[in-house]
Amino acid sequence: MERIKMIIMYDGTDFAGYQVQINQRTVQQVIERALRKMHKQDVRIFSSGRTDSGVHAMGQVIHFDSHLELDEPTWKHALMTLLPSDIRIIEVEKVSQDFHARKDASHKTYLYQIRNAKEHEVFARNFEWHIPRALDVDRMQEAAPLMEGTHDFTAFAASKTNVKGDKTRTIHEVKVLKEGSHIFIEVTGDGFLTHMVRIMVGTLVEIGIRKKDPKCISEALSTNERHKLGLTAPGHGLYLKKVAYEKGKTEH
Amino acid sequence: MERIKMIIMYDGTDFAGYQVQINQRTVQQVIERALRKMHKQDVRIFSSGRTDSGVHAMGQVIHFDSHLELDEPTWKHALMTLLPSDIRIIEVEKVSQDFHARKDASHKTYLYQIRNAKEHEVFARNFEWHIPRALDVDRMQEAAPLMEGTHDFTAFAASKTNVKGDKTRTIHEVKVLKEGSHIFIEVTGDGFLTHMVRIMVGTLVEIGIRKKDPKCISEALSTNERHKLGLTAPGHGLYLKKVAYEKGKTEH
Repeated sequence: MERIKMIIMYDGTDFAGYQVQINQRTVQQVIERALRKMHKQDVRIFSSGRTDSGVHAMGQVIHFDSHLELDEPTWKHALMTLLPSDIRIIEVEKVSQDFHARKDASHKTYLYQIRNAKEHEVFARNFEWHIPRALDVDRMQEAAPLMEGTHDFTAFAASKTNVKGDKTRTIHEVKVLKEGSHIFIEVTGDGFLTHMVRIMVGTLVEIGIRKKDPKCISEALSTNERHKLGLTAPGHGLYLKKVAYEKGKTEH
Repeated sequence: MERIKMIIMYDGTDFAGYQVQINQRTVQQVIERALRKMHKQDVRIFSSGRTDSGVHAMGQVIHFDSHLELDEPTWKHALMTLLPSDIRIIEVEKVSQDFHARKDASHKTYLYQIRNAKEHEVFARNFEWHIPRALDVDRMQEAAPLMEGTHDFTAFAASKTNVKGDKTRTIHEVKVLKEGSHIFIEVTGDGFLTHMVRIMVGTLVEIGIRKKDPKCISEALSTNERHKLGLTAPGHGLYLKKVAYEKGKTEH
């Protein structure tokens, strides 16, 4: 058996998220179905983590074990042929048997894309959050670093979150960039709670329209109260951009 | 009765083209259904021309007559509320009773979007033609003006074309622009035959990969032979960008 690591990209629009759900089209299900065709038996895949319905990936990482002895370019070509056009394989790598896409991930980067303009681009409606009200980007840029550091992020988790136990995470960087009518928010951290990036983005947006004050962030972090923060930004503006692994972990 | 002109934008991905077809979701059908809800009776719309399945519009123009006495912003808002998210209204204007979206159009501009890169962007797969082989853009730029002017464009029409009679058209400009890994082809003319822009683009692409010589264009124009030209480019890279009307025609 060989362990295969793949970096994949997907358009989340027509998926009910990453994880297998009965009677729903999910990323995991579609890839496992393609692998079953190749192997004539079930193959279970493991990802760096789930993505919600509508959320996209530029660099999701998965791993699985296979008895097929294919080289990396053949793997890429063979599986891609069996996948629908909304999932693409970026890279295939054979890794050691102890590599694990989720457990070995050292940090992840998410990108959130906003279009701040009066009119909406119909072609981008599934790929960015359209905000017609003017956003004060300077104010958002000042507030962003207040979310960095190691904190108990309970207030930044969906109330229906299924993460048990400790909600302490380390956020390395929250960057807000403006390019024309686009605003990009990039968040890098060692781990994320359910909806955490979307709540960070929703809060920054409410700070940008002056509905919230930047100090709501420190208040939320100290009181653990979800209602201190802004709304949960829609999933369709969010991209899992990159999953990083500690050096050495992906070598065989 | 008032005549209303609207500029609309649509994502052609989930439409079987513009024109009404039985059991198919088309742009015309979806707009007429929304207007029927507002008027409690059938309202027929007229466009500047059809677009094929998968083809997008940034500036399609339609007109129709209405007994509702709404001002322009109310029209825009009321109809937009009833339309699905893949059609947007850009502009509403009350025009004189003799305005006709198709008959009065003086010229149209189409935009074709190509991504010339090894890997495909999954998020753009319905919005551009992905060509992994290197394109010689200089060669395409040299060939493009050979398609300009007033010619019998029989060779540039789909063989199943339903345009009867004269196939003489005037093409004002064919521009090829490169921006990073994107190539944009913009074509302006007074009228277009079925698939004409897509055959122009397919021919420029085959010139770009050196499968065809630029002189195939003059040969096709003089012999009317379709096979001298390149393939028909896929519909999903094509956008109806703008429909122009002679000054005065849209004023009341």
